[in-house]
Amino acid sequence: MEVHQIYVGGGFCKTDSVLKVLNPFDQSLVGETFIAGKPELELSIENALKVKNVLRDLPLFKRYLILMEIADGIKNKRNHFANILACEAGKPLKYALGEVDRAIQVFIIAAEESKRLPKEYLSIDWTPAGENKEGLVKYFPIGLIAGIAPFNFPLNLAVHKIAPAIASGNPIILKPARSTPLTILELAKIIDQTELPKGAVSILPMDREAGNQLVTDERFNMLSFTGSPAVGWKMKQDAGKKKVTLELGGNAGVIVSDSANIEMAAKKCVTGGYAYSGQVCIHVQRIIVHENVYVQFLDRFIELTKNLKFGPPADENTDISSMIDEENAIRVEEWVTEAVANGAKILLGGKRTGAFFEPTIITKTNREMKVCALEIFGPVVTIEKFSEFDEAIRFINDSEFGLQAGVFTNIISEMNHAHNELEVGGVIINDVPTLRVDHMPYGGIKNSGFGREGIKYAIQEMLEPRLLVKNTDY
Amino acid sequence: MEVHQIYVGGGFCKTDSVLKVLNPFDQSLVGETFIAGKPELELSIENALKVKNVLRDLPLFKRYLILMEIADGIKNKRNHFANILACEAGKPLKYALGEVDRAIQVFIIAAEESKRLPKEYLSIDWTPAGENKEGLVKYFPIGLIAGIAPFNFPLNLAVHKIAPAIASGNPIILKPARSTPLTILELAKIIDQTELPKGAVSILPMDREAGNQLVTDERFNMLSFTGSPAVGWKMKQDAGKKKVTLELGGNAGVIVSDSANIEMAAKKCVTGGYAYSGQVCIHVQRIIVHENVYVQFLDRFIELTKNLKFGPPADENTDISSMIDEENAIRVEEWVTEAVANGAKILLGGKRTGAFFEPTIITKTNREMKVCALEIFGPVVTIEKFSEFDEAIRFINDSEFGLQAGVFTNIISEMNHAHNELEVGGVIINDVPTLRVDHMPYGGIKNSGFGREGIKYAIQEMLEPRLLVKNTDY
Amino acid sequence: MEVHQIYVGGGFCKTDSVLKVLNPFDQSLVGETFIAGKPELELSIENALKVKNVLRDLPLFKRYLILMEIADGIKNKRNHFANILACEAGKPLKYALGEVDRAIQVFIIAAEESKRLPKEYLSIDWTPAGENKEGLVKYFPIGLIAGIAPFNFPLNLAVHKIAPAIASGNPIILKPARSTPLTILELAKIIDQTELPKGAVSILPMDREAGNQLVTDERFNMLSFTGSPAVGWKMKQDAGKKKVTLELGGNAGVIVSDSANIEMAAKKCVTGGYAYSGQVCIHVQRIIVHENVYVQFLDRFIELTKNLKFGPPADENTDISSMIDEENAIRVEEWVTEAVANGAKILLGGKRTGAFFEPTIITKTNREMKVCALEIFGPVVTIEKFSEFDEAIRFINDSEFGLQAGVFTNIISEMNHAHNELEVGGVIINDVPTLRVDHMPYGGIKNSGFGREGIKYAIQEMLEPRLLVKNTDY
Amino acid sequence: MEVHQIYVGGGFCKTDSVLKVLNPFDQSLVGETFIAGKPELELSIENALKVKNVLRDLPLFKRYLILMEIADGIKNKRNHFANILACEAGKPLKYALGEVDRAIQVFIIAAEESKRLPKEYLSIDWTPAGENKEGLVKYFPIGLIAGIAPFNFPLNLAVHKIAPAIASGNPIILKPARSTPLTILELAKIIDQTELPKGAVSILPMDREAGNQLVTDERFNMLSFTGSPAVGWKMKQDAGKKKVTLELGGNAGVIVSDSANIEMAAKKCVTGGYAYSGQVCIHVQRIIVHENVYVQFLDRFIELTKNLKFGPPADENTDISSMIDEENAIRVEEWVTEAVANGAKILLGGKRTGAFFEPTIITKTNREMKVCALEIFGPVVTIEKFSEFDEAIRFINDSEFGLQAGVFTNIISEMNHAHNELEVGGVIINDVPTLRVDHMPYGGIKNSGFGREGIKYAIQEMLEPRLLVKNTDY
Repeated sequence: MEVHQIYVGGGFCKTDSVLKVLNPFDQSLVGETFIAGKPELELSIENALKVKNVLRDLPLFKRYLILMEIADGIKNKRNHFANILACEAGKPLKYALGEVDRAIQVFIIAAEESKRLPKEYLSIDWTPAGENKEGLVKYFPIGLIAGIAPFNFPLNLAVHKIAPAIASGNPIILKPARSTPLTILELAKIIDQTELPKGAVSILPMDREAGNQLVTDERFNMLSFTGSPAVGWKMKQDAGKKKVTLELGGNAGVIVSDSANIEMAAKKCVTGGYAYSGQVCIHVQRIIVHENVYVQFLDRFIELTKNLKFGPPADENTDISSMIDEENAIRVEEWVTEAVANGAKILLGGKRTGAFFEPTIITKTNREMKVCALEIFGPVVTIEKFSEFDEAIRFINDSEFGLQAGVFTNIISEMNHAHNELEVGGVIINDVPTLRVDHMPYGGIKNSGFGREGIKYAIQEMLEPRLLVKNTDY
Repeated sequence: MEVHQIYVGGGFCKTDSVLKVLNPFDQSLVGETFIAGKPELELSIENALKVKNVLRDLPLFKRYLILMEIADGIKNKRNHFANILACEAGKPLKYALGEVDRAIQVFIIAAEESKRLPKEYLSIDWTPAGENKEGLVKYFPIGLIAGIAPFNFPLNLAVHKIAPAIASGNPIILKPARSTPLTILELAKIIDQTELPKGAVSILPMDREAGNQLVTDERFNMLSFTGSPAVGWKMKQDAGKKKVTLELGGNAGVIVSDSANIEMAAKKCVTGGYAYSGQVCIHVQRIIVHENVYVQFLDRFIELTKNLKFGPPADENTDISSMIDEENAIRVEEWVTEAVANGAKILLGGKRTGAFFEPTIITKTNREMKVCALEIFGPVVTIEKFSEFDEAIRFINDSEFGLQAGVFTNIISEMNHAHNELEVGGVIINDVPTLRVDHMPYGGIKNSGFGREGIKYAIQEMLEPRLLVKNTDY
Repeated sequence: MEVHQIYVGGGFCKTDSVLKVLNPFDQSLVGETFIAGKPELELSIENALKVKNVLRDLPLFKRYLILMEIADGIKNKRNHFANILACEAGKPLKYALGEVDRAIQVFIIAAEESKRLPKEYLSIDWTPAGENKEGLVKYFPIGLIAGIAPFNFPLNLAVHKIAPAIASGNPIILKPARSTPLTILELAKIIDQTELPKGAVSILPMDREAGNQLVTDERFNMLSFTGSPAVGWKMKQDAGKKKVTLELGGNAGVIVSDSANIEMAAKKCVTGGYAYSGQVCIHVQRIIVHENVYVQFLDRFIELTKNLKFGPPADENTDISSMIDEENAIRVEEWVTEAVANGAKILLGGKRTGAFFEPTIITKTNREMKVCALEIFGPVVTIEKFSEFDEAIRFINDSEFGLQAGVFTNIISEMNHAHNELEVGGVIINDVPTLRVDHMPYGGIKNSGFGREGIKYAIQEMLEPRLLVKNTDY
Repeated sequence: MEVHQIYVGGGFCKTDSVLKVLNPFDQSLVGETFIAGKPELELSIENALKVKNVLRDLPLFKRYLILMEIADGIKNKRNHFANILACEAGKPLKYALGEVDRAIQVFIIAAEESKRLPKEYLSIDWTPAGENKEGLVKYFPIGLIAGIAPFNFPLNLAVHKIAPAIASGNPIILKPARSTPLTILELAKIIDQTELPKGAVSILPMDREAGNQLVTDERFNMLSFTGSPAVGWKMKQDAGKKKVTLELGGNAGVIVSDSANIEMAAKKCVTGGYAYSGQVCIHVQRIIVHENVYVQFLDRFIELTKNLKFGPPADENTDISSMIDEENAIRVEEWVTEAVANGAKILLGGKRTGAFFEPTIITKTNREMKVCALEIFGPVVTIEKFSEFDEAIRFINDSEFGLQAGVFTNIISEMNHAHNELEVGGVIINDVPTLRVDHMPYGGIKNSGFGREGIKYAIQEMLEPRLLVKNTDY
């Protein structure tokens, strides 16, 4: 068991408030760290503001080198990182390794993008008023950033805020989830060994009061939040003058057309539905299948789901493990119960044992049931059927959320309709909505989010333009 | 005197609440219109939502034709527009004509940009997870927009919201200032004659309750506000889930280096300082001159200011007329009095007659005085001197605002420092901060604003991306 | 009958060498103009070089106004232009009107693009060697351009060189085809009335010697040629140091998948195959249809082709008229005869009367026959069938040309394969290769061309970059 | 002494024709390699064509990994590479190390750019003809590339062709200079160990006949040549249908304004003038100094030049060593003699000892002298003075070449004039024209070149666009 100090304004320290981190699978102690209070946050803010201009003026080749050093640092400890992550998050090792690899990618991409910050050179002489003038738009760092990351990708979703902040020349104070702070504090050690000015990055698990200050303190110029919709939208209201980006959840849907490769669709949907017990913003929650292929798809989907292997997260053969805590498993159980009470039918699974909830397939649902209407964040998938493609589109859109959607089809017109009509941030053709490659623009519409991430896009959000209009003839 | 009906959900109508519009110069009646209440707003919203998808799907060549038709429509009534504008806003005719010409430009540019909406085509295969995939980002209209425009550019600042809304395929409901609703209602007649679907644009002077609803009603997806900082920032807090852009004011500064062309600097600063009595967001409020050229600049600046001709707005020889109302002239008078009481010295002007305030030059000011610290929105300019360029930069930055700044210099290093260090949205070299060409990115940082306008940039704010990830080999 | 003077270095003049222009349909005299010799070319070159720097420095708003004035000028004489064009080229009026409308479009687009010339602002500090530096790339006009246009689109293909030249700030000397010089000389009158500096555009029908000089004279910095492959490739060799772009021909193919809308495919193929008697670079020459729908497609194709109405070009009901001259009609006849002699079968047409060749459908062809292997530039279409999509791809690629191809399909994988595998400059899904909208990038690969046109793309070819590396801190 | 096999179509081999590589400083044997003849070239071409489609379809992450592996491979043998390079080229070690570092950079940048190949997504519906259509432009590899590299940067200028070729998915056959083939053959070993398909890269010193075939063989789709103007322009004529880019030489000039930092200017000009004995395309050949600072600059320039340390290339303290061969040193000597005979005055140096030519400063030159008019490619700098800035501009422009120019100034108007008026590919403010960072667009106008290099720009030249027009509603 390791004691992880928190990373405060460029230095590691302890506080009086100890935070024990437990493995969700067996409640074993994974490690200890500390809760930051107002003084640690204050120190982090002050040190961040001190280096603000240094970061702004950091030549691009230095940003690049620092970010590549961090990528190398993680790569060199890949298994170590994956193990901590698996244990603190209860995430099966194969997915934990995948997450670590993605975090490496994020730093590499951020390194590359740091050399490609946006710049515009524009003509001004469109009217006589602009004769002999031209414009240059340089993008400057927005200022101190507050980042808030969730438990489900404790490394990668935090890194999606830290890496762009470094690339764009902004200081950042990051609050990890209380249940999963260790992996990202492990990263702090690597960051600390680079030439990045001290204070540029702070990583602090926080008490509620300090957490609120991230939202309300006007010294932060931006709040970048990933988490639940209710919390996120409330923050937007309380954020004062600062910029806010929100990466929230959804109830992602999949359409399976009768032109699709059914075997591929079924396989991908099983992974998209049950990976990390569905505790993923873009997990496959609602599937709708063309009636001609419904039975074929369903049979295969059930069969593949049955094959999923339950076990401890750090075991490399485990497909599915416990949910993050019993509280959430109970919530999922209640939602399923509610659905059944209202006419839904369980085709597989449906049972809970402690924090473990079985991979579950439900049908005959309706839009009012929580398993459809809300983000389930658990290993539950609903499957229904359709006869006309437009019906499937309306089914997916009949939701207050709009993050991503998957469409399995080989028909051009169906692809076009899906892109034009699905009210989501991303439509994935012939793959599950769960697909995310780290450089793509990512984020939701409707209640699913505000703003975009995906390194280049996150960097853009962290910059503000400053136009120079200059003479050309003076 | 003409009675102007308001433009509600695609039709013109009257309400019980009559609004009389007076000429600020002589209180003569310019025209009458009506105040919209909740029912008119509700109808506008409903009709806007009805045509939302039609607008989204409008082919680009139709958007282009509609926008060009509007530009032509204004061009054909250029003098008519300028006269109404001059009279309702008390704006000298030459500036009113300039504003009409700029509004024509805005529609032309919007027509052109409607054909150039952003689209991205991106590689996805940066890791094995993305193999055989590629991405398309199409930008979709954000949804119903609430626009709020100020009195000082009653046509052009409204048009900076309406034209991009049409170009981007969004419906918009625009609230003009109560003191200056007529010019923009004149535009409504032109818009109404195009093929733009009815309901796409509504223009409604409003009572307070309806105005508040623009901010709080969740059916609006975006609020685009131009006006005062206090009102704007409050709106951001009340806006719920919608996107907000704010174009607020400032206390724009000018630096005159000893390398500058002093004659040019003085002339441009007089225009920038007193055009429309300084009732311009980017009017020249604070000038700082290098000590070597201070006397030379000041003498010339005073001389040119003395030559400004006072008169009625609709007279083509008038340089300066009354302010928008006596209330504001009294406010300016009080601020000047406060400055003098604290040690400032009036070099020219300083007197008020009704709503007219003389072009005024003050020196020996300090940062706490309202004439420096706040947005004066009146014909008052402060002039101070500096010896080191960095001192001038700090002087400009010593403000809670940051819209634009002007720098007169012929030295590369001064230009570089100005671009890198001035905390503003735009740095104008060898011209006044008052320079704005309509296609350039425009907007402030610090308390001066949130987001950018300038057709292409406004359009971007009114769109949201939707990624399509597709196979390349399937 | 009108006498059209030629446009030499900014002035209109006659020469001793009269050129009579005849209507291909009835050999009636359409008009007279003159052949330029060495002296006229020399004067044009000298005057062009004199205004080179004036053009380079022309503010963008002036370029815009000039180009829009030209667009308006053509619009005001739309029918007049179409009539001359129809008569001199033997082009049915409906297509002539279409060409005039497209020429108007080209000038409007060029006006818009003249304000959006490329400009780059780039970071230089990717290594310590670039610290504190940044780069600006401004694009400068390449210099004097020689344009050579063909007979088949005497207005629009000339305009695709002239409009971008004006937009990019380059002088141009344009040589129209001898058979069709009148429409473009009509344009010269409009150009001459604008504020474009005299000498910027010259339009000269030429004798062979002068024509050769366009290729070899080193005072030309660029040669932009549209015409036949053999001539074009030879010019590239003789062009010395100048830049060359070639828009040549092809033997464009169409694939009709069994997933396609056959009625739509047949209709579009008839237009693409026989419009202007196939005297179009991207006319439909080779069709290959999936065996499942072959009969259905063929029946409909024959039926529609039979309905085409032969007549004089200036008649608005005419679908098809004479070819440009009897020489070409005889050539087409010989090629068809050669095909039949080698086993091909005529399904419709095949007969010649003077310069008129019937709309002809052939099948059972092979790749060696001239009707397949070469650019027929006549109203002849071959139709074959396939069983596997890859076979159709190979069929289209089995050619030394690669301009555009059309693919009628509703299958995503077929669209993907077509884009990835068809060796052409443009793949048109669900339309004929004959589709060209004027702003799209257009040009061929293999023997079909070198470089791209399509206003923005043509402008890019007519510019050369000049980097400025500047300090940011000096 | 090592024997370096040549890299033919993916394998290493010897030929009958041995090539001995000597150190220019002392004629010691650096290594041996082989001259390829027609059979080796034929094998290289065949193998290249075999893997053409494999390269085209190589996922981007694989291109990235291969290119990063090569960068790492060079980094691991940095000193080894620098030593061979110093010895075969007679390049002082410090410059050789710099070149190796730049080659590493080039592969890193190419790796990054391989993920960012251009792609366009465009609207088509600008007219009714384009309704319901949209366009995608994908860039495809142009095909087999012939690269020809010069002796002076035997590694980096070859790598500027190889790395973009790999990034863009094209096979390449590279011909190094006969005097300096070893470093690049050392690179071949590293390339061979990656997963790059065999045959994608061949590196062959060649006899004349094989060399000519690179130019004339139509199986090559592109020729990328770096070398002397006379050879390059001849190749353009002989190249048939293939695309040609030429990176040729010049007689780069520097302007020193009286506003400049003279100490900085003098130091940078000495390096730019004499590094690698001026055998650099962008070496400082002609300096023109404002009369007010002429003496000050000249004194300092002479003083610093005197301090340059002559010695063997592999010695880390050596500033200047022998030229590439005695033939070239004799040529330089003759040019200097010619200048003196016509009135020029030698201020320093001017003597030759074998292949070594002293760092030389000449004044009182005129434009006809070869030391001014031609590319000297030796350690000779001319210095003159001016009184008006326009005079200096004309001086620089009075040349048939136009590669890069340096301007030392702190005046905005001088910078503007320089950018607008200097007829070159790049204007470097406050640095020498010798500045090149590897990602910037690089290339000359006038007789100095054709096309651009600089990874991203070279990649662009190696691609050709293919448009897909697709329906959006079908």
